Amino acid sequence: MIEFESFAVELAHEAARVTLPFFRSGIGHEDKGGAAGFDPVTEGDKQAEAAIRRLIAARYPDHGVIGEEYGEDRPDAEHVWVLDPIDGTRAFISGLPLWTTLIALRVAEKPTVGLIAQPYLDEIFIGGPSGARLLRGATERPLAVRACEHLTDAVISTTDPDIFNGAERGAWTQVRAAARLARLGCDAYAYAMVAAGQMDLVAEASLKSWDWSALVPVIEAAGGRVVNWRGDAPDGSGQILAVGDSRLIDQALVTLKRAAI
Amino acid sequence: MIEFESFAVELAHEAARVTLPFFRSGIGHEDKGGAAGFDPVTEGDKQAEAAIRRLIAARYPDHGVIGEEYGEDRPDAEHVWVLDPIDGTRAFISGLPLWTTLIALRVAEKPTVGLIAQPYLDEIFIGGPSGARLLRGATERPLAVRACEHLTDAVISTTDPDIFNGAERGAWTQVRAAARLARLGCDAYAYAMVAAGQMDLVAEASLKSWDWSALVPVIEAAGGRVVNWRGDAPDGSGQILAVGDSRLIDQALVTLKRAAI
Repeated sequence: MIEFESFAVELAHEAARVTLPFFRSGIGHEDKGGAAGFDPVTEGDKQAEAAIRRLIAARYPDHGVIGEEYGEDRPDAEHVWVLDPIDGTRAFISGLPLWTTLIALRVAEKPTVGLIAQPYLDEIFIGGPSGARLLRGATERPLAVRACEHLTDAVISTTDPDIFNGAERGAWTQVRAAARLARLGCDAYAYAMVAAGQMDLVAEASLKSWDWSALVPVIEAAGGRVVNWRGDAPDGSGQILAVGDSRLIDQALVTLKRAAI
Repeated sequence: MIEFESFAVELAHEAARVTLPFFRSGIGHEDKGGAAGFDPVTEGDKQAEAAIRRLIAARYPDHGVIGEEYGEDRPDAEHVWVLDPIDGTRAFISGLPLWTTLIALRVAEKPTVGLIAQPYLDEIFIGGPSGARLLRGATERPLAVRACEHLTDAVISTTDPDIFNGAERGAWTQVRAAARLARLGCDAYAYAMVAAGQMDLVAEASLKSWDWSALVPVIEAAGGRVVNWRGDAPDGSGQILAVGDSRLIDQALVTLKRAAI
């Protein structure tokens, strides 16, 4: 692995050290959403982001950092780390081991190194200039998407159709009707499954930059593609389409484009 | 643990030995549904059920066995084992570690010992006359549901709202609207989370006896309750309501009863 990839793995281990004691502990939940709705975030999330930020500041003081909990530092730097120590906080507080730690490094605005880690499973899916691989304990194996020429053969996923707006939900329903099999409730773990050749397509909306930045290098280094619902590079629209086989993009976009922001 | 509980754990280990090599292997899928739809089942499921049946026949030749893959042997015996080596085959073929091995022992038709195992996570949630506990590697800890007096505070789950018929879906939607947080896509693992005090309620329909028999002793030994949508003992209706705090039953049944079969 190149230096930045190894450093991202160090950051993931540090995040795991902080987050795991909170998992299934029944402590540390608070309601960030207030009257607007339920948006849980754990102490683990905050403490882990603070710990990661300390390591980055010590090693690369000129790098920028963008995180869900503590905002932006030097977001216009050449190198910017984009962090979400606990993506899938709802899975986390439900005891489900499908929440993940997301860490990305953007170089000149382009996500270049990314990882999706699940500490309870001891899994780190990492992608970057040196390729894509799954690290588990002392083992390491390459990640590669699988071929899937037709949407009708695809295993697809979204976290929760009820999060979509009306147009998005209609588009998802059509894609789902065409696909072979759909799974719900996976958050970012679904993208790891695309990189691992276990799923073929994920479509989601309302994603923030710290939700999607880490996914791009993992999936692209494994041979897949990540675009927005217009078919362009992911952006502030928050609408994401990730595929293992790029032939699926046009088949999904026929429908998704109608709901594109 | 009593003898039958220890034996159930032995069966779970045997199932894991057979199923794990198939997980994320990309081999062994077949389509059981034919023209009626996609209903995947793996070679692992079949081979594991055969292996479990051999162990039961060797140890308790007069016991009955009911399994998803190989049907019924002596279903009217005093002791009947009810098996589903891979519950959540869709999660399994999608690479998601939320499929489970379900093993129950019915004594005089009543589920008395049950376990929910997830081999990739090395977790066995077991309930029976000696209590409820989570076995993980060499560790063991007691399972206990948590208090949740009001549905508005509840974390709830169902596998996929699209599996419900119209009346069931309407009922689920109302329960979900009242609850604090809903998670999808968990299959039987959601019931383990109720027993572990991480979730408060699971409502599902169309469950077969091998889907629900193992859940009952796990949740009840942890202090919860499992009923059908009329509030009676689970039965052929396949409609299941599991709660950690029994005060939730009436609050959920107000709605679910209208869709009860």
